[in-house]
Amino acid sequence: MNNKKIPVAIIGASGYTGLELLKLLITHPIFEIVYIGNSEGEVRVEELHPSLKGVLSQSVLKSNAKEIAKVADLAFLALPHKTAMGFASELLELGVKVVDLSADYRLELDTYEAYYCKHTDKENLQNAVYGLPEFYRNEIKNSSLVANPGCYPTAALLSLLPFCDLIDENFPIFIDAKSGVSGAGKKCTPKTHFVSIDENIFAYNPLMHRHQPEIAEKMRLQSKKEFDINFVPHLLPLIRGEMVDSYMLLKDEGVDAPSLLKEFYKNERFVRIYDKPVDIKSPSGTNFCDIFAKVEGKKLYLNAAIDNILRGSSSQAVVNANIMFQLEENLGIPTISYVP
Amino acid sequence: MNNKKIPVAIIGASGYTGLELLKLLITHPIFEIVYIGNSEGEVRVEELHPSLKGVLSQSVLKSNAKEIAKVADLAFLALPHKTAMGFASELLELGVKVVDLSADYRLELDTYEAYYCKHTDKENLQNAVYGLPEFYRNEIKNSSLVANPGCYPTAALLSLLPFCDLIDENFPIFIDAKSGVSGAGKKCTPKTHFVSIDENIFAYNPLMHRHQPEIAEKMRLQSKKEFDINFVPHLLPLIRGEMVDSYMLLKDEGVDAPSLLKEFYKNERFVRIYDKPVDIKSPSGTNFCDIFAKVEGKKLYLNAAIDNILRGSSSQAVVNANIMFQLEENLGIPTISYVP
Amino acid sequence: MNNKKIPVAIIGASGYTGLELLKLLITHPIFEIVYIGNSEGEVRVEELHPSLKGVLSQSVLKSNAKEIAKVADLAFLALPHKTAMGFASELLELGVKVVDLSADYRLELDTYEAYYCKHTDKENLQNAVYGLPEFYRNEIKNSSLVANPGCYPTAALLSLLPFCDLIDENFPIFIDAKSGVSGAGKKCTPKTHFVSIDENIFAYNPLMHRHQPEIAEKMRLQSKKEFDINFVPHLLPLIRGEMVDSYMLLKDEGVDAPSLLKEFYKNERFVRIYDKPVDIKSPSGTNFCDIFAKVEGKKLYLNAAIDNILRGSSSQAVVNANIMFQLEENLGIPTISYVP
Amino acid sequence: MNNKKIPVAIIGASGYTGLELLKLLITHPIFEIVYIGNSEGEVRVEELHPSLKGVLSQSVLKSNAKEIAKVADLAFLALPHKTAMGFASELLELGVKVVDLSADYRLELDTYEAYYCKHTDKENLQNAVYGLPEFYRNEIKNSSLVANPGCYPTAALLSLLPFCDLIDENFPIFIDAKSGVSGAGKKCTPKTHFVSIDENIFAYNPLMHRHQPEIAEKMRLQSKKEFDINFVPHLLPLIRGEMVDSYMLLKDEGVDAPSLLKEFYKNERFVRIYDKPVDIKSPSGTNFCDIFAKVEGKKLYLNAAIDNILRGSSSQAVVNANIMFQLEENLGIPTISYVP
Repeated sequence: MNNKKIPVAIIGASGYTGLELLKLLITHPIFEIVYIGNSEGEVRVEELHPSLKGVLSQSVLKSNAKEIAKVADLAFLALPHKTAMGFASELLELGVKVVDLSADYRLELDTYEAYYCKHTDKENLQNAVYGLPEFYRNEIKNSSLVANPGCYPTAALLSLLPFCDLIDENFPIFIDAKSGVSGAGKKCTPKTHFVSIDENIFAYNPLMHRHQPEIAEKMRLQSKKEFDINFVPHLLPLIRGEMVDSYMLLKDEGVDAPSLLKEFYKNERFVRIYDKPVDIKSPSGTNFCDIFAKVEGKKLYLNAAIDNILRGSSSQAVVNANIMFQLEENLGIPTISYVP
Repeated sequence: MNNKKIPVAIIGASGYTGLELLKLLITHPIFEIVYIGNSEGEVRVEELHPSLKGVLSQSVLKSNAKEIAKVADLAFLALPHKTAMGFASELLELGVKVVDLSADYRLELDTYEAYYCKHTDKENLQNAVYGLPEFYRNEIKNSSLVANPGCYPTAALLSLLPFCDLIDENFPIFIDAKSGVSGAGKKCTPKTHFVSIDENIFAYNPLMHRHQPEIAEKMRLQSKKEFDINFVPHLLPLIRGEMVDSYMLLKDEGVDAPSLLKEFYKNERFVRIYDKPVDIKSPSGTNFCDIFAKVEGKKLYLNAAIDNILRGSSSQAVVNANIMFQLEENLGIPTISYVP
Repeated sequence: MNNKKIPVAIIGASGYTGLELLKLLITHPIFEIVYIGNSEGEVRVEELHPSLKGVLSQSVLKSNAKEIAKVADLAFLALPHKTAMGFASELLELGVKVVDLSADYRLELDTYEAYYCKHTDKENLQNAVYGLPEFYRNEIKNSSLVANPGCYPTAALLSLLPFCDLIDENFPIFIDAKSGVSGAGKKCTPKTHFVSIDENIFAYNPLMHRHQPEIAEKMRLQSKKEFDINFVPHLLPLIRGEMVDSYMLLKDEGVDAPSLLKEFYKNERFVRIYDKPVDIKSPSGTNFCDIFAKVEGKKLYLNAAIDNILRGSSSQAVVNANIMFQLEENLGIPTISYVP
Repeated sequence: MNNKKIPVAIIGASGYTGLELLKLLITHPIFEIVYIGNSEGEVRVEELHPSLKGVLSQSVLKSNAKEIAKVADLAFLALPHKTAMGFASELLELGVKVVDLSADYRLELDTYEAYYCKHTDKENLQNAVYGLPEFYRNEIKNSSLVANPGCYPTAALLSLLPFCDLIDENFPIFIDAKSGVSGAGKKCTPKTHFVSIDENIFAYNPLMHRHQPEIAEKMRLQSKKEFDINFVPHLLPLIRGEMVDSYMLLKDEGVDAPSLLKEFYKNERFVRIYDKPVDIKSPSGTNFCDIFAKVEGKKLYLNAAIDNILRGSSSQAVVNANIMFQLEENLGIPTISYVP
């Protein structure tokens, strides 16, 4: 085995996904953190993330693409959308590969601009690969820019895509999704105040969340069919994890959904098919996507769960990086849950 | 005003809904608790429910229908299904009115026997009234046996029934419901262990929960149409409250769902129509059902929340009792939330 | 019974204690809310507190002492310290009685200025009465300015004061206190972010919290002895409630602490003495202070729990107002817990 | 490096500490799980612990000492006290080393029998070593029976022992401890029901918990002085973690407690000294014990936190096993927190 280290940078180390990237890469056998950046710099990692005291004491720098290019072969961008594309274009220009955890390179131009903002890096957008390994593995292998999927789309697509040919596209697909509060980010807002969300649950942006077009677009690209995706996310009183419940009609009766899923994913390490409803905590701390399916007549119910900041973000990003450097896909990727 | 007290009994005082009945009736201006029973007896209320220390020190007796009939005009039955119908038939025979919080008198015979067990009190079943006051007020007034609705059906029906004439019954209605752990009862089971459900969520009995036929039957009875109800409940890591999200197709575009709801419920005290998604905590501690609706083309999204052990059980039971005795419907019924 | 209404104002209606005051006074049989103020005004109550939709739709005004004096006989001030004393002095000058929920009139001048800021209303400070009804009932009766106690001091003093003559003041008293997040206020800060405090607990301001001198001063005033109070508060992952555990030495062995407490509080409605450790949830939603005590040799362990925003703030404020107007102390004061 | 695997058994694989042992040993570079036992057997690991689906599919056997001795060099016993000593004596007789996670070998005979039950393996009890590595490292090295410390004693002793010579033993030490619900075990009881402990906290067994004599005995053995330990544990509404707050008097003023701790533990990998109060979540998922100390005059406040089922049980057990086999102490021992 060739143990030569590959130097990587983490840009945007202050947030939850930045922290998860740090935690994953500290123990990664090949990737080596050589640069940690955020928007301010001049702080040590353990000041940003006290739980890393005694584990990592590197300095966090004010992110600078030129400095990064001097030391790193790949950069993980854990930045807000819009900020990300500025950095990405500069880094790519300087020869640094990029895994972008923001939305900036996930969508086709029109969809992006309709739901986010004007795109300022259309050239790279054209070459970006959507980083859902089970479906884009080969493209990722040869890419220097991978757009890491949104958290909800990850769970939604992994459960929906195997059924594309069987779903009746004349009927809407209704997705009722639930996310832990880490999905709302580290910013202190009335919504993330403990007293607001503890012992509570509420829907937000019903039928108008930005992940709706992401799910629809990828289903269209994979199947060459248009699906009517209707997405209602909820905030849950818990930290980590995401559940995506999808309801739809199949063209025909008699589909054996569990067997179909088991067959479809039989060679995938990071998808588990369950015979009873999944829970949000079993994949917590891991890169697994857990899926349960049930059919009644023509009706299909899909029930998927992931760790929103791992499979829905940082660990999937590291899987993508593994693939980009022809490493084993599961190198340094956690499979052991935080349960209990 | 005639302040003459009406003596009532609470049978099944040990569980959560029994406790809520006690709390409601302690402060009720007309109903007076004269008998508190459970299956064991020989205990004081404050031993069963230490939070009532200094508030209520009556004795709890081993429930006995004949003794109840000597002292009470009405009995609330907070018993498991099957046990309830035994008591109810005896009490009715003895001239005691009954509000039954179990499932025993909620359904037509065939449906009941398909989902629960053999029915042993068919005679009374025929005369029982379904205690959803907004829809069965007049029947409740003259009834001596009211079947208090299930918690999920209460929220589901209050949001769905106003749309019966507009919904396209050729397509399924998908209901994604979420309940706090008090809905699973006081019994200690692996599901209700703190470590199992804290930081977690999972679906249970998907597409086969007993509340599915209850919702379907009442919609049929109100509308004379068959709807295909598909119900998936989830357990949430919180104590109190229930959210019911429903997804369906309307026959036509252009329905102004919020206005329709406001008009429909304009004279109802205990239904609130919101212009943004509801949360589970705002109706907590009250008898309110909070509803939000959104239409996109022909698609209708309904989002309702109640306190599962009040509006979904005990406070709705007291409203029914108020109606049965021609009292003001809101007598002793809480409207002030536990928030924060 | 004379049912003549007494008009009152709530100043500072936006926060948690303001909300609790609103909830208590909506149903109070004598006090009538005639003025609701906050620092901004021009908003309806149900916009500030959506859970009150359909219950209270009064307007909230930009607080103005002169306007308040025109309509109200008493004002509850739920304001930050320093802001409170400005309002209080103006209102008292205009003949309005005041129950101040802030710290501004709780302490002797020197202590106040050492722990808070310069005091600008020394005259009224001299006449203010400390609103712990069990110990200052007579003084409250004749006062026009009551300083409502801090939440921790309420639970600490109610458990400690009965033992003043028995405690060995040559040794320190150690108080390990725990509070729900509502005690940290509605402001969105890193500490109150759900992700920070959920599944967590931490001490804050150990041995230097402002409630330490308040406890020490009141013990000195009641006992004419100096006690060495050492106070370490913790933040708990829950919304409502506070537990105060105190550890100390008695002068002698053989003290029967439970009996002493029961005797001491035998005529008090709002103190409950338990024979086993108390929990934080039983008094939740009420004005009770629950206390358990245990002696081992000369060592005394006291364990007290209250609802921090009711007994620790708003319901105690209403008790004080009841006393100031010679009403029954328990008028409109909740005793029925939110359990489950 | 010699990578020869060492075969180990886990007995008592059903509970939380059994699960943690499995999770730790799956990824341990030297120890290899060759035997997994519980009291029933005939089940696969992923049935007992569904979160391990796809990770470990070994069979769980009905524990049998003779079978274990055929395949394993060491057994971890995650059994109830009393059951443990039966197994341990048999295994030791058969030449298998034992790390016992129960209380059976932690205490001197008299103390054990006073607080637990009759001891049936006095011979091995005499030779058992207390597995707190920072203090008993050398004894552990040469032992074949290590008694893994209790969770509370681990955090209490690590914070208290450095101060033994400075503490005034004429004054009691008061320990106010707080534990997550995993500490109460997997058994479904009224205390562990979600509705009982969510939004709640309560003390249990105040001044009479079995961990009190364990702390006292080890302090005496280390210091040759008698300390008066007074221990009050509380149950917290969270899953994982434990905080131990200790209050005491020092003989003299002027002690620089933080510096003393930093010096004392400067060569220890698994103890972190903080300059501000610790939280329960930062060491969660790791073997760290986090400590903060503050002195006021002669008063000392100690504030320690650990993961109760890792440092307080399973990861400390693996550290002990590492030492028993002369491996690096940190081999396979987690240091990266579950935060957020």
